[in-house]
Amino acid sequence: MTDGAPVIVACVQLAPVIGDAAESLARIHAGLQEAARRHAKIVVLPELANCGYVFADRAELLRAAEPLDGPFVRSLVEAASSLGMVIAGGFAEIDDGIIYNSSVIVDRTGVVASYRKAHLWNTEKTCGFVAGSGHPPVVDTDYGRLGLVVCYDLEFPEWVRMAALDGAELLCAPVNWPLYPRPAGERPGEIVRVQADAAVNRMFIAVADRVGLERGQDWIGGTVIVDADGYPLTSIELGTPQVVTASVDLALARDKSISPLNDVHADRRPELY
Amino acid sequence: MTDGAPVIVACVQLAPVIGDAAESLARIHAGLQEAARRHAKIVVLPELANCGYVFADRAELLRAAEPLDGPFVRSLVEAASSLGMVIAGGFAEIDDGIIYNSSVIVDRTGVVASYRKAHLWNTEKTCGFVAGSGHPPVVDTDYGRLGLVVCYDLEFPEWVRMAALDGAELLCAPVNWPLYPRPAGERPGEIVRVQADAAVNRMFIAVADRVGLERGQDWIGGTVIVDADGYPLTSIELGTPQVVTASVDLALARDKSISPLNDVHADRRPELY
Repeated sequence: MTDGAPVIVACVQLAPVIGDAAESLARIHAGLQEAARRHAKIVVLPELANCGYVFADRAELLRAAEPLDGPFVRSLVEAASSLGMVIAGGFAEIDDGIIYNSSVIVDRTGVVASYRKAHLWNTEKTCGFVAGSGHPPVVDTDYGRLGLVVCYDLEFPEWVRMAALDGAELLCAPVNWPLYPRPAGERPGEIVRVQADAAVNRMFIAVADRVGLERGQDWIGGTVIVDADGYPLTSIELGTPQVVTASVDLALARDKSISPLNDVHADRRPELY
Repeated sequence: MTDGAPVIVACVQLAPVIGDAAESLARIHAGLQEAARRHAKIVVLPELANCGYVFADRAELLRAAEPLDGPFVRSLVEAASSLGMVIAGGFAEIDDGIIYNSSVIVDRTGVVASYRKAHLWNTEKTCGFVAGSGHPPVVDTDYGRLGLVVCYDLEFPEWVRMAALDGAELLCAPVNWPLYPRPAGERPGEIVRVQADAAVNRMFIAVADRVGLERGQDWIGGTVIVDADGYPLTSIELGTPQVVTASVDLALARDKSISPLNDVHADRRPELY
């Protein structure tokens, strides 16, 4: 639980380099350093931040995958400890020969939550990832009660709801949002859906997207921090590598009321769903 | 089921006159006539279209309430028959002494669906309405397979999902959206949530809102028709009485695929929810 003081949340939008874990890790840690300079206490990294996304086949993905106690997660824990922050971010996890599109939340004490993406996007299904079946974790940290999902999970309101009902004040969402055409003047639909996810639960959501054309695939670069009313606290559709921050009062997410007689969670009719 | 030919959907945004059912009905039928002139085959009216919203107490609401076979619904059936359209709209329904915030879908044959709002907003809870417990109806009509919810129901993605999973191609949503402040440049959150409701289900949604300051309460006037990708087909935040139309191909809502390997409904993990 937070004490009601605002906390600075950062999202690091970067371009992982497929096949070059060292360079990807350097970009991640440069982002974490910048977030620390800007006094961030909660930092979100993209999905598959250390390895890239467009894998040619399972063999290539296998070379990029690491165990939960591998160098990527260890380096996040070291950074969390030395910089005094909580970090959420995504990587390709291998466990007992099975590869997951995973994310972790780490703090100065180590890994406080790990999660395997439950809803796989497109070629993730064919390049070797297996869908997880664990619920979105929700954990108390020094700076607030955090939930964790990955990318396409956000498109399933049932899934986001579970994290919110478990008390997440801020949902951390590492993503890789592919860029598709949309009508002129319209915000990317992915961001619209995150706005709705936040508002119907009165929960903050921090999305860290990636950038960098990868094997012909471009990305939205849609990193955004959304408040409990569902409105963005940061500029949207940034498109380039950068760190964005917002000062948020996570205590607001513990009040679910939206009118004198309405509460977004208490008004649910679970007996009917 | 539709045959794939586009159909014109209209939403009638109007100002009911509280305490003057005759004037409200005149405005409704003027809207239906205008919709017919513009070749609409599916027309959506606001929530509580014939009676207004801000009731002083249950006694006043009771005077406005009608049975399902009362003059309001009968007049809609007559219009549906004479104008050759399907009409969805809201009214205060009384049944066995209990008052519901109801909506109907009617066609040339009569009432094809009726529904009692399951999630009540604010003073609806104190001025005499009782929440319904029936699921959103989904019915085949001459012009498509239509679902029906009322206003605040839209804020519960679980509820919208039920109509979508039952095959609604177009969700008809009579609403009365109260006007609240929001950040400059931001679309009303209610519309954002409808966009998300549509996209995560690949279903069209037609929202008919009301206008007209009523006992100090102003309204968004946010009538909008949203496509299966979640983008508005009509101008938003109109604010004044008017009829808006869009030509929609409801067959698009029967294809839930959003990538070569993704389907917004088949990708759900209901065993985990």
